[in-house]
Amino acid sequence: MEFWFEFASTYSYPAAMRIEALAERRGLTVTWKAFLLGPIFAAQGWGDSPFNIYPAKGRYMWRDLERICARDGLCFHQPSVFPRSGLVAARIACVNATAPWLPDFVRAVYVTNFAEDQATDDPGVIARILDGLGLSSHDVLADAARDEAKAALRQRTDEAIARGIFGAPTVFVGDEMFWGNDRLEDALVWKIGTASGCPAASA
Amino acid sequence: MEFWFEFASTYSYPAAMRIEALAERRGLTVTWKAFLLGPIFAAQGWGDSPFNIYPAKGRYMWRDLERICARDGLCFHQPSVFPRSGLVAARIACVNATAPWLPDFVRAVYVTNFAEDQATDDPGVIARILDGLGLSSHDVLADAARDEAKAALRQRTDEAIARGIFGAPTVFVGDEMFWGNDRLEDALVWKIGTASGCPAASA
Repeated sequence: MEFWFEFASTYSYPAAMRIEALAERRGLTVTWKAFLLGPIFAAQGWGDSPFNIYPAKGRYMWRDLERICARDGLCFHQPSVFPRSGLVAARIACVNATAPWLPDFVRAVYVTNFAEDQATDDPGVIARILDGLGLSSHDVLADAARDEAKAALRQRTDEAIARGIFGAPTVFVGDEMFWGNDRLEDALVWKIGTASGCPAASA
Repeated sequence: MEFWFEFASTYSYPAAMRIEALAERRGLTVTWKAFLLGPIFAAQGWGDSPFNIYPAKGRYMWRDLERICARDGLCFHQPSVFPRSGLVAARIACVNATAPWLPDFVRAVYVTNFAEDQATDDPGVIARILDGLGLSSHDVLADAARDEAKAALRQRTDEAIARGIFGAPTVFVGDEMFWGNDRLEDALVWKIGTASGCPAASA
């Protein structure tokens, strides 16, 4: 299954924390697909997170996320800055998609932002996360700053748009799309070809 | 628990079909609160359903709703007109909120719109639903056309805005708000005062 995520996305946090364990239990592997929501939102006329543009929805989201994290046993503190750009982290995740350390890196960035309220849009904070994983932050950051890395993330985001993605997290099982942390369980049990309408609907 | 719903709302359909049975199993009663999303969306600058304004989200929603209905054993056909105004049905539901036939009426309107693709914005269709429940459609429609009924629905919608409602369905357990068909189960098991942050977050 493909897991499409944006580092700034609030509901991607609980999803990123649990998807690998859930998938493993079903013998599935997760393909990690970092992308950027900014260009997708901009195409809809949004210059900011919809949770900031629509305050009632935003207030609810923070409370809802708090409840979800409490239920899942995840630490959560509303970040003092939202959204924090996931650009640097996303370039790293994009060009290291199959690295064995990638899932740990992704989870660490989410925890640093949404539980520890640290500036994950700051390359220095990302460097500390990389060093903490036993990597050379200098090398990884330099690699992710190359033009090829920038182009790879742009291409990934174009692919997201082409596949109909409009939010994060989004999971694909084959061509079947599931949007939101709420749909992980449905995606995990999805059988291609089910839910093809209502045969009894001749009423 | 309070169930706030809008007859034009797609995800209110599966929620309306299952909430009473779910609540009864837990010894809870449902208070049915019809309201209109139109004025709430208009205040956000939307002159139409967001599912029409944002096509990628709309396409996903119809497929998602199809899957949900299939999972719940509900008949579903994408209505040929969307959204259908719930104004007449909402006035009826508002002034008959405690009538013993109200839950059956609400469910019948949803089925008529989302499974049978009939024009539930047409008072004639609503009349047939009322007659089918053994009621006098003439009396119920006349009652719902009075100025008092119109004022009651406007007041209900103002109350929705004041309570922070931004979409449908929305469930309240005390002051705790749950948005969406996806949150019914969480609302049913909600204990006042839980999810008060993350005590281990001193990292």
